[in-house]
Amino acid sequence: MSKITFLGAGSTIFAKNVLGDCMLTPSLQEFEFALYDIDYKRLKESESMLENLKESVGSGVTINVYTDRKEALRGAKYVVNAIQVGGYKPSTVIDFDIPKKYGLRQTIADTVGIGGIFRSLRTIPVMLDFAKDIEEVCPDALFLNYTNPMSTLTGAMLRYTNVKTVGLCHSVQVAVPELFKALNMDDEGVKWKISGINHMAWLLEVSKDGKDLYPEIKRRAEEKQQEKHEDMVRYELMKRFGYYVTESSEHNAEYHPYFIKSQYPELIDRFNIPLDEYPRRCVEQIENWEKMRDQVVHDKNLTHERSHEYASYIIDAIETDSPFRLHGNVLNKGGLIENLPEKSVVEVPCLVDRNGITPCHVGELPEQLAALNRTNINTQLMTIEAAVSGKREHIYHAAMLDPHTAAELSMDDIVSMCDDLIEAHGPWLPNFKKENILV
Amino acid sequence: MSKITFLGAGSTIFAKNVLGDCMLTPSLQEFEFALYDIDYKRLKESESMLENLKESVGSGVTINVYTDRKEALRGAKYVVNAIQVGGYKPSTVIDFDIPKKYGLRQTIADTVGIGGIFRSLRTIPVMLDFAKDIEEVCPDALFLNYTNPMSTLTGAMLRYTNVKTVGLCHSVQVAVPELFKALNMDDEGVKWKISGINHMAWLLEVSKDGKDLYPEIKRRAEEKQQEKHEDMVRYELMKRFGYYVTESSEHNAEYHPYFIKSQYPELIDRFNIPLDEYPRRCVEQIENWEKMRDQVVHDKNLTHERSHEYASYIIDAIETDSPFRLHGNVLNKGGLIENLPEKSVVEVPCLVDRNGITPCHVGELPEQLAALNRTNINTQLMTIEAAVSGKREHIYHAAMLDPHTAAELSMDDIVSMCDDLIEAHGPWLPNFKKENILV
Amino acid sequence: MSKITFLGAGSTIFAKNVLGDCMLTPSLQEFEFALYDIDYKRLKESESMLENLKESVGSGVTINVYTDRKEALRGAKYVVNAIQVGGYKPSTVIDFDIPKKYGLRQTIADTVGIGGIFRSLRTIPVMLDFAKDIEEVCPDALFLNYTNPMSTLTGAMLRYTNVKTVGLCHSVQVAVPELFKALNMDDEGVKWKISGINHMAWLLEVSKDGKDLYPEIKRRAEEKQQEKHEDMVRYELMKRFGYYVTESSEHNAEYHPYFIKSQYPELIDRFNIPLDEYPRRCVEQIENWEKMRDQVVHDKNLTHERSHEYASYIIDAIETDSPFRLHGNVLNKGGLIENLPEKSVVEVPCLVDRNGITPCHVGELPEQLAALNRTNINTQLMTIEAAVSGKREHIYHAAMLDPHTAAELSMDDIVSMCDDLIEAHGPWLPNFKKENILV
Amino acid sequence: MSKITFLGAGSTIFAKNVLGDCMLTPSLQEFEFALYDIDYKRLKESESMLENLKESVGSGVTINVYTDRKEALRGAKYVVNAIQVGGYKPSTVIDFDIPKKYGLRQTIADTVGIGGIFRSLRTIPVMLDFAKDIEEVCPDALFLNYTNPMSTLTGAMLRYTNVKTVGLCHSVQVAVPELFKALNMDDEGVKWKISGINHMAWLLEVSKDGKDLYPEIKRRAEEKQQEKHEDMVRYELMKRFGYYVTESSEHNAEYHPYFIKSQYPELIDRFNIPLDEYPRRCVEQIENWEKMRDQVVHDKNLTHERSHEYASYIIDAIETDSPFRLHGNVLNKGGLIENLPEKSVVEVPCLVDRNGITPCHVGELPEQLAALNRTNINTQLMTIEAAVSGKREHIYHAAMLDPHTAAELSMDDIVSMCDDLIEAHGPWLPNFKKENILV
Repeated sequence: MSKITFLGAGSTIFAKNVLGDCMLTPSLQEFEFALYDIDYKRLKESESMLENLKESVGSGVTINVYTDRKEALRGAKYVVNAIQVGGYKPSTVIDFDIPKKYGLRQTIADTVGIGGIFRSLRTIPVMLDFAKDIEEVCPDALFLNYTNPMSTLTGAMLRYTNVKTVGLCHSVQVAVPELFKALNMDDEGVKWKISGINHMAWLLEVSKDGKDLYPEIKRRAEEKQQEKHEDMVRYELMKRFGYYVTESSEHNAEYHPYFIKSQYPELIDRFNIPLDEYPRRCVEQIENWEKMRDQVVHDKNLTHERSHEYASYIIDAIETDSPFRLHGNVLNKGGLIENLPEKSVVEVPCLVDRNGITPCHVGELPEQLAALNRTNINTQLMTIEAAVSGKREHIYHAAMLDPHTAAELSMDDIVSMCDDLIEAHGPWLPNFKKENILV
Repeated sequence: MSKITFLGAGSTIFAKNVLGDCMLTPSLQEFEFALYDIDYKRLKESESMLENLKESVGSGVTINVYTDRKEALRGAKYVVNAIQVGGYKPSTVIDFDIPKKYGLRQTIADTVGIGGIFRSLRTIPVMLDFAKDIEEVCPDALFLNYTNPMSTLTGAMLRYTNVKTVGLCHSVQVAVPELFKALNMDDEGVKWKISGINHMAWLLEVSKDGKDLYPEIKRRAEEKQQEKHEDMVRYELMKRFGYYVTESSEHNAEYHPYFIKSQYPELIDRFNIPLDEYPRRCVEQIENWEKMRDQVVHDKNLTHERSHEYASYIIDAIETDSPFRLHGNVLNKGGLIENLPEKSVVEVPCLVDRNGITPCHVGELPEQLAALNRTNINTQLMTIEAAVSGKREHIYHAAMLDPHTAAELSMDDIVSMCDDLIEAHGPWLPNFKKENILV
Repeated sequence: MSKITFLGAGSTIFAKNVLGDCMLTPSLQEFEFALYDIDYKRLKESESMLENLKESVGSGVTINVYTDRKEALRGAKYVVNAIQVGGYKPSTVIDFDIPKKYGLRQTIADTVGIGGIFRSLRTIPVMLDFAKDIEEVCPDALFLNYTNPMSTLTGAMLRYTNVKTVGLCHSVQVAVPELFKALNMDDEGVKWKISGINHMAWLLEVSKDGKDLYPEIKRRAEEKQQEKHEDMVRYELMKRFGYYVTESSEHNAEYHPYFIKSQYPELIDRFNIPLDEYPRRCVEQIENWEKMRDQVVHDKNLTHERSHEYASYIIDAIETDSPFRLHGNVLNKGGLIENLPEKSVVEVPCLVDRNGITPCHVGELPEQLAALNRTNINTQLMTIEAAVSGKREHIYHAAMLDPHTAAELSMDDIVSMCDDLIEAHGPWLPNFKKENILV
Repeated sequence: MSKITFLGAGSTIFAKNVLGDCMLTPSLQEFEFALYDIDYKRLKESESMLENLKESVGSGVTINVYTDRKEALRGAKYVVNAIQVGGYKPSTVIDFDIPKKYGLRQTIADTVGIGGIFRSLRTIPVMLDFAKDIEEVCPDALFLNYTNPMSTLTGAMLRYTNVKTVGLCHSVQVAVPELFKALNMDDEGVKWKISGINHMAWLLEVSKDGKDLYPEIKRRAEEKQQEKHEDMVRYELMKRFGYYVTESSEHNAEYHPYFIKSQYPELIDRFNIPLDEYPRRCVEQIENWEKMRDQVVHDKNLTHERSHEYASYIIDAIETDSPFRLHGNVLNKGGLIENLPEKSVVEVPCLVDRNGITPCHVGELPEQLAALNRTNINTQLMTIEAAVSGKREHIYHAAMLDPHTAAELSMDDIVSMCDDLIEAHGPWLPNFKKENILV
């Protein structure tokens, strides 16, 4: 019996999506689902939900709960990673509050930026621990990483462990449908090409029957920008740099030095930027979960429709050798994207078949897009450097190289803010105790 | 109405396979099939065959015959290339007879070796002419090359024209089924990985449920080698170099310096090597065609089953954006196979989707396999060099670097043999007139 | 008689350094010095100066003045380029004044930053014109570029012309002596390694008898920072990023988003940053020249000591095949510095001998240094893109990607400032007329 | 006191050249020369010779003899390697005699070919042992390898140890002078460019005052070929492939499948190929040594003139930071020669200065030359693979990929010959005992 291990299975809704999808996949009916989480209560809730779902959809899978991580992983063929380290409280709150004291505002803080750096720093060591177990008890497993910050976590796994890893995010596959919907355009028969880095991949081509649709897209976007809407940052980036980006405006607002600027406070309103958006969402999500918990966990008639998450499609493609295409996050080894660093993690088309996930060679990005990617890759590479070396000065480097942070703060303030964050995160950052200070 | 142009449409049987496949593909029912050939009689025969087939299978395609190549190509979305330059007579006969006078024996002569070199030299200029037309009248067309020698022709197109080209051969997809059949093994559920160069791609991995099948394959192969059979060269190569190769024994016999050796005449019998196999096949094929012609060309009830040729699957995948995997011949740009030269043409997994054909990054081959590939790539690169520069000395280089030719003949004999071949091929090699001799 | 052509020979002082050096080089006594400048008066002054110098040092060279550029270049073996396009007035004044209106302050404006971008935009077309002449009348000449911005001009020559080009700057060879002098350390017997990009190359190693000197350097630097001095930015960069940089504090202040910050106006004083330094120097230089002109131009007893400019050493090394090492600016082809883009221009050790200038393979920079370089390379690549494509939006991209500009201004202000600059530079930027606006 | 350790110091003549050179180098007068050899008698002879030389030239160096290898190496700044493993008897004799039984003839057998393979196999393990000591007791030492086969030994050191290694051979620097002398041409003022692999590097350019000298060279060479002379193979290679090669005819005769051919026995006479040349030289050398021993070892008035060996120039350049150029054997990392494999060892110009030896980026070789190099690199890479893996089948691969071996013998004979050689070399090849047989 083949085994899918789900790390962070206490995320009941996400486990429902990914494992519910698998239950609906004919080729996976003989699989064991091995659930693991450090939160036993939530783990059991997910188990209950999945058992109900199994009954109601009539699936043949086996569901087991593990409290020993190594046992959960032993012999796994696939590992789904969907953990969160530190949680909303205390970690996310700290990631937003301390920078705010220095005048540095954020929106989501899960990718790059000061929040993304610290989220990486507390998660990478946990991932490297997973990797040690995997190398021991299931060395051939395919590790499907869903946890953010995608590029740094996936990069750390690919560069510092022997675990076969791919990073998964659905921002690529929804980009064109959402753009077309927002502009009242029909995406039927539309052909597109997207590559770049996670959360900053670029819609390089978009056409129908050989006709470039960008002129019409830009015309409508320009018109739409006349009034307030939810996605203004992204449209502005398209206007200025010529291409549409895969992540939302609230994310992109903090990836660049252009939008959240203390010198230009009016931009917040002008581009409708939801500062502190992520903590707000966390609170909402927690409240919602409280409301829906019983319904999801104990509903004997729970149903599920196959979601757009990649995992079940990947596993099916490998099991049945039915080729599948995804945009995966992989190491840029050999220069898949020729004008990005070889050590960076890129989001490119990949072929999935019996041989697993094989990335495609993309070539060059238009130089301005590669340049924007490189500004974020700078921070990502330094963050990984910090996490694996345990050198505090590399945290400073990561932060000083972040375009938004560097635009807003002086070097002294950046260093002081990093120190405050390290102090506040305390036990979540065991590698950066005071005695390790090198600068 | 989208258009598929078929160059060399006078090859009735092959046109039936490729265009018959397309007729059976739902997404292609609105296409025009544009047939072109320099042999008008055979062109009309193919037309008749295709019209019959269209009626009998109830396809909605439009079939047109063109006598003007540029018109055939104008506006094409796909171009299928299946030409042969020089034919059995005089060219193939010359390619075998002259080397034989020097004591150099061949089997197929369509890949590398002295025959492969001259086949390339007379075909590349014709292909570059096609490319000029394509760049003018259908610059976005995808060029599907079926003509041999695959690596040199595809390489010339990819390096010296702007035509989007992929080289197609079915030796990869039949390799495992044929091997398993020959060894009485069941290939159900078998997982495999193949990469290398055309006709010398390697079965890098072959397993079932995680178990390496190579030990069992080698055991059976060793046993089978005890008696005469049709595929002895390939098994011997597997024994000596550790991996199974995609092309047949009759082909591989002439790719290496190990089998056809005047010093060891007994090897011909021992490895059951069919010298002069290709001319024999040509004669047979011509005779067969005479016999079956009427039946194929004028049969109102002609039927067709979808073949294993890649073309219709590729076109369907692009039209419908249903991802498809093929092993295509593409330029090794960016080092798809890291230990082969970047200018060589490699045969690697490719993803086909709405964006066309995107090659995958393979990594390194085991060094002995890369080394064997490089010995053939040497000749391929020099052959292209000769064809595009018109420099006669590069023909000599190509021949002197061919492992089989160099093993059998002295440099003087190689040069003299090349001169004889250039003379004999005369009008088929207009670029190499006497006055161009540089050495 | 071999020929050295000096473009921009009206720069009398610089011509004296470079050609005076050549006069003192035994191997170059038979050379013709071909002087060319668009300013005839200054050209004649340089001629007079050089003729005097020739007499007084007893050199055998021939000095000729040309008013036809192509004739000046015809048959040249070496071309020295030391031009300035647009001059202090109007160009430099514009480059400082218009950004200042937007609140964007600069110090030198000759490398990157908004001033560096526009200096590149008006100089690259002139250089490409030179290249056309050179390709015609002296295609084998070695082009020694002394004009700034070094990376963009050299990059444009190397990527878009066939002229053998190297970019020369003496910031590398003076870095260690000046650092040691400033810190009261003895540089006798000190071993060092420097690589990076022009004006932002890094002192990667510095040691004596195998002992790393960085700890002592950093200790002294920290101490020196307690009081005001002229080189505070550079010391701060060393403290924060761990390595010493080759260009001065007044330059580096504007290469990063850390020093000239409207949000932190106190940093100007704290790091002793001389805003508007370059215009001040220009005025001073012009005044000085007026005072010293007669003395330099008409002094029959003019003397010269060999300077530290590379040109005469390079030419001597090539003529005599005496190996010489320099840190030259060359294309990063093949990844001389592995973690910088292949299209960037890097400053690396080069071997000079009879075969000209051959760059060495450096390997990887520490990642934080590569990251800092990449932020400037982003702007450099977009600037070249703008200059050769004539696309106005690429100017915006260059400016929006400049770390200092992006930190200080909004995208709207950046675009508006670029438009003002294009307008103000008028005839100096013929490629960017209004009708070419694409965004 | 800095230390130069000489491994294989019992080679008295070579020690005299290298260390005698050092004695004549002013910057090295304070050095210790640490002599080590496994042959104590010869070691003491070298010591005596060097002490005499020291007196007679008045050098300030210190000479010490060590019988403990690790002590000899401890603290060394430079290590000169000039060992021979197995010696004339039994090893060289075996390397020639066994192949001869199979009809495979050789001339020198120190580079590639069957003799080169086995010479590598018995030397690489010894070198890797050296490396372990060096990594422990002098990790920063520069290892100057003079031992053949150059490419495989240097490659093994560079790929499988952390020892800073360069391979040194004087075939490059003597190539042009010897060619010109042989053709009665004057090499004064001649400019040349050479790159490739050791013993098969190519004279890519040769000119004087901008005039290509190849036409004249080829004319004279063609004329000289009319009569018998010592260097006929090399001239023939130049005629056929267009470029002059750095190693002699006796060497090159066995690097290619063109000269020693059982099918064409007349070529031996025609190209004047000295079969079994190396054993003959060994015998002669041993006899000569017996005659001159006393004179060299005990002559109080022994003199020395600086030779053309690179070692003393390299050490001087590093000590005094006076740039020096050499053609060193280094790993082709980053593609110094773009069309050779990255794992191969190439012979390219290097800059020597205080930072040690930095290889230059060469670019592409003409494709036919790269192709010839690749045929030999194939064997070199497989030889290293065999040596470090201990897998017997890789020895077979190395031999089967050798162009000369593969041309002459069948695969069965090659395998059988390898087995005989492994057996005969016995204790010199401890890694390839019977029980390790994997094929």
